[in-house]
Amino acid sequence: MGHSSQEASPDPDGGHRGAVPAAGLDLLIDIRGRGGLRKSVEDALRSAVRSGRLVAGTRLPSTRDLSGQLGVARGTVTQAYSQLVAEGWLVAAAGGGTRVTENAIAPDAGPDLPPAQARGAWHDLRPGRPDVAAFPRAAWIRAVGRVVRDSPAEVFDYTDPRGRPELRAALAGYLARVRGVRVRPEHLVVCSGYTQALHLLTGVFAARGAGTAAVEDPAMPDHAAIVGGRLRVLDVPVDDEGMTPAGLADADVVVCTPAHQFPLGVSMSPERRNHLLALARARRTWIVEDDYDGEFRYDRHPLGALQPHAPDRVAYVGSTSKSLGPAVRLGWIACPPSLVDDLAAAKLLADRQTGSLDQLALAELIRSGDYDRHLRASRLAYRRRRDTLVRAVADRLPGARVTGIAAGLHAILDLPGEDQVDLVARLRSASVRVQALGAYTRSTTSLPPGLVIGYATPPGHAYSAAIGALLDVLAG
Amino acid sequence: MGHSSQEASPDPDGGHRGAVPAAGLDLLIDIRGRGGLRKSVEDALRSAVRSGRLVAGTRLPSTRDLSGQLGVARGTVTQAYSQLVAEGWLVAAAGGGTRVTENAIAPDAGPDLPPAQARGAWHDLRPGRPDVAAFPRAAWIRAVGRVVRDSPAEVFDYTDPRGRPELRAALAGYLARVRGVRVRPEHLVVCSGYTQALHLLTGVFAARGAGTAAVEDPAMPDHAAIVGGRLRVLDVPVDDEGMTPAGLADADVVVCTPAHQFPLGVSMSPERRNHLLALARARRTWIVEDDYDGEFRYDRHPLGALQPHAPDRVAYVGSTSKSLGPAVRLGWIACPPSLVDDLAAAKLLADRQTGSLDQLALAELIRSGDYDRHLRASRLAYRRRRDTLVRAVADRLPGARVTGIAAGLHAILDLPGEDQVDLVARLRSASVRVQALGAYTRSTTSLPPGLVIGYATPPGHAYSAAIGALLDVLAG
Repeated sequence: MGHSSQEASPDPDGGHRGAVPAAGLDLLIDIRGRGGLRKSVEDALRSAVRSGRLVAGTRLPSTRDLSGQLGVARGTVTQAYSQLVAEGWLVAAAGGGTRVTENAIAPDAGPDLPPAQARGAWHDLRPGRPDVAAFPRAAWIRAVGRVVRDSPAEVFDYTDPRGRPELRAALAGYLARVRGVRVRPEHLVVCSGYTQALHLLTGVFAARGAGTAAVEDPAMPDHAAIVGGRLRVLDVPVDDEGMTPAGLADADVVVCTPAHQFPLGVSMSPERRNHLLALARARRTWIVEDDYDGEFRYDRHPLGALQPHAPDRVAYVGSTSKSLGPAVRLGWIACPPSLVDDLAAAKLLADRQTGSLDQLALAELIRSGDYDRHLRASRLAYRRRRDTLVRAVADRLPGARVTGIAAGLHAILDLPGEDQVDLVARLRSASVRVQALGAYTRSTTSLPPGLVIGYATPPGHAYSAAIGALLDVLAG
Repeated sequence: MGHSSQEASPDPDGGHRGAVPAAGLDLLIDIRGRGGLRKSVEDALRSAVRSGRLVAGTRLPSTRDLSGQLGVARGTVTQAYSQLVAEGWLVAAAGGGTRVTENAIAPDAGPDLPPAQARGAWHDLRPGRPDVAAFPRAAWIRAVGRVVRDSPAEVFDYTDPRGRPELRAALAGYLARVRGVRVRPEHLVVCSGYTQALHLLTGVFAARGAGTAAVEDPAMPDHAAIVGGRLRVLDVPVDDEGMTPAGLADADVVVCTPAHQFPLGVSMSPERRNHLLALARARRTWIVEDDYDGEFRYDRHPLGALQPHAPDRVAYVGSTSKSLGPAVRLGWIACPPSLVDDLAAAKLLADRQTGSLDQLALAELIRSGDYDRHLRASRLAYRRRRDTLVRAVADRLPGARVTGIAAGLHAILDLPGEDQVDLVARLRSASVRVQALGAYTRSTTSLPPGLVIGYATPPGHAYSAAIGALLDVLAG
């Protein structure tokens, strides 16, 4: 993929490549056969943006120029560009041409600006993050202190690739209590967040002969990329009842967010849930249940997880990325018993185990009640923020709809007739960072309108200013 | 691979499988096509042992029975058994037959006994671990406390997939000072230990068209398994000058332990180092330099790393597994500049990033000098242990040779004329756990004689008792 400009020496492996002068940057992209030229061009550009080598705002060469330099059909480059626009990496620049978007990094792939800006000058309303300023610092320090001071020496040695028994026992109880998940500690596999869970599960399914995975569209772009590494991805549309049944019967694996669809925020209707569960039982389909914000539900009793209704078919995945913060890389898979051995072996060869001290600290937080206290406080704070957003939109944008607000840390702001790319650009120039809904769809034909507003992201003291700045632009 | 006995339902995907009554345990192994039946049988058995479903000492069915039950050629099962014996998973049982070894888990894959036993009743002299009782508890608590209390909120958010800038800056200085590594912080990729580093690098090399990787034999069995997931493994013998040049010219990648070969303990001779570096420059070979115990050298100035002599070709990998303990999953790759983008993209899709708080705690340990103080104290303690071992062997086993002792945390005890499998069994019955050198070779034809003694593993107070118990058996 990307080929760092620091390297003086010529290309080592002699691949098909070209030098692209993009806004004065020597962009050397490398499109050696990786399943199709279009995919190779996309991969190379994505990785150059991710690594920061292609900086925000950089104007890309025209499709004619790039196709000439790479010696590929112009249509290939055009398709690659529109795919990356759909994923939110690139935007159509005013007056034609294509640029790297300001918030080009995949929606939750982390700050793509220097910390100072990310913290200060910008009103950051990107989805996919909690308020990291609310990280329970004192409780975490207390828990780590207890664990590191009082544990037997063996906790500093290797442990079971499935994770520390203390954490698996604590999680089995916690998940049953909070999400209705039914799992025995020996069927829990602790990992380093949802990304790794999906990566490991996809590999296990592929090794067991799975060929096709149904993935919601829209969804996190990276999730389809991870699944696509081992399985054929079937894009499945989402409507206001959640993932549609279309084509699910052809899939060996279904990856979904039933409690609170990301990004649309709808929850899967009882009919759809029953249909999916029946399918899994009848056709032995594997279901990956991504419960990324299951702890945050405001208006009615939390929807239970799918997992207890088909524990032999559903791999339920949760993490601390929204409850504590993305910097603590802890996730868990409540695993169908028949997959545990394969998953443990895959984890062992991927990174042996997740760090034990973080695992024991989380177990201690759950045991002490600090985890529940922190979640209750967060739930209250995010619910207030949501209500503030809904009220402010009603006051200042009578024509707009706010949806997907029953749960989670983000909402959809639907602005009929507005061009979302243009909106994001106007907001960017007012230092407001949001994500266009179109950034999450893989279909290049339909870009659903609207903006995704992450109302948990700013620190508490900066929240109302952020909403104010947002609405000044939208109402202005 | 493994198929948990807890699952009531029939096999979901209908593969080629059989039920094996091994010592009363319903061992359902699943040998669906994974590149050859022999490999499938091996994988299935390895994963059943790893997961603890095939417990230590379990007698396996005869090759005739198993081949009958699986419906595969008896030779396939025989080959699989001998491969797993060579890797140390199985042992030939007294009176014929094959059993699961007591210390069957891959040499550094963690405790395969309940903590109580692992800590107490056993004299644990397995290699691959430091003395975890010496973990710097107070310094770690201090460092985490400082970081979590005093850092800006953004440290709780996502960070660069390459790792926290604070740690990459600290490591660039530390590695230059201690190992002579020449790397800029932007070319360092922080990961979760050597296993993940090898996993990510192998994937990047394969995506760039590499086909063959030369791997030392003997070596950690898991390392060949990780590389073998994406590349053809070329077994390269090791002699007393280190990895032999045989066949290196045919490899696209060379994976080696130049400073202190694992497990033989020799260091690569200057001639061999120059030959390897010349090869890398001339043939654009990638070198993975596994510097797993580079901090521990006793008798002369530490051998510098290969990396500074070919920074465009050598990926230098280190970790805290031997310096702090395996429970802290922190490693680093000093990366050829041309690989950084691909490696960062691979890390992002594998698990986004390694946990930030551990990264910042290590940066703080390096900054404060606590890391160097801890390493100096460890070096002194391990050197004393090594001298104790060498003296005790000289006193009580005049016929034996102790080799590979210039560095590291383990030694080779060469006992001419002794059968290592029988030795390990006799030691096991005396509650002494060591690893047979044969457990590290992939060649089923030659099992190098001798035992690998991990002299760092027992806590300080238990060390002389462990050596005493070892020599009571060997001298008895």
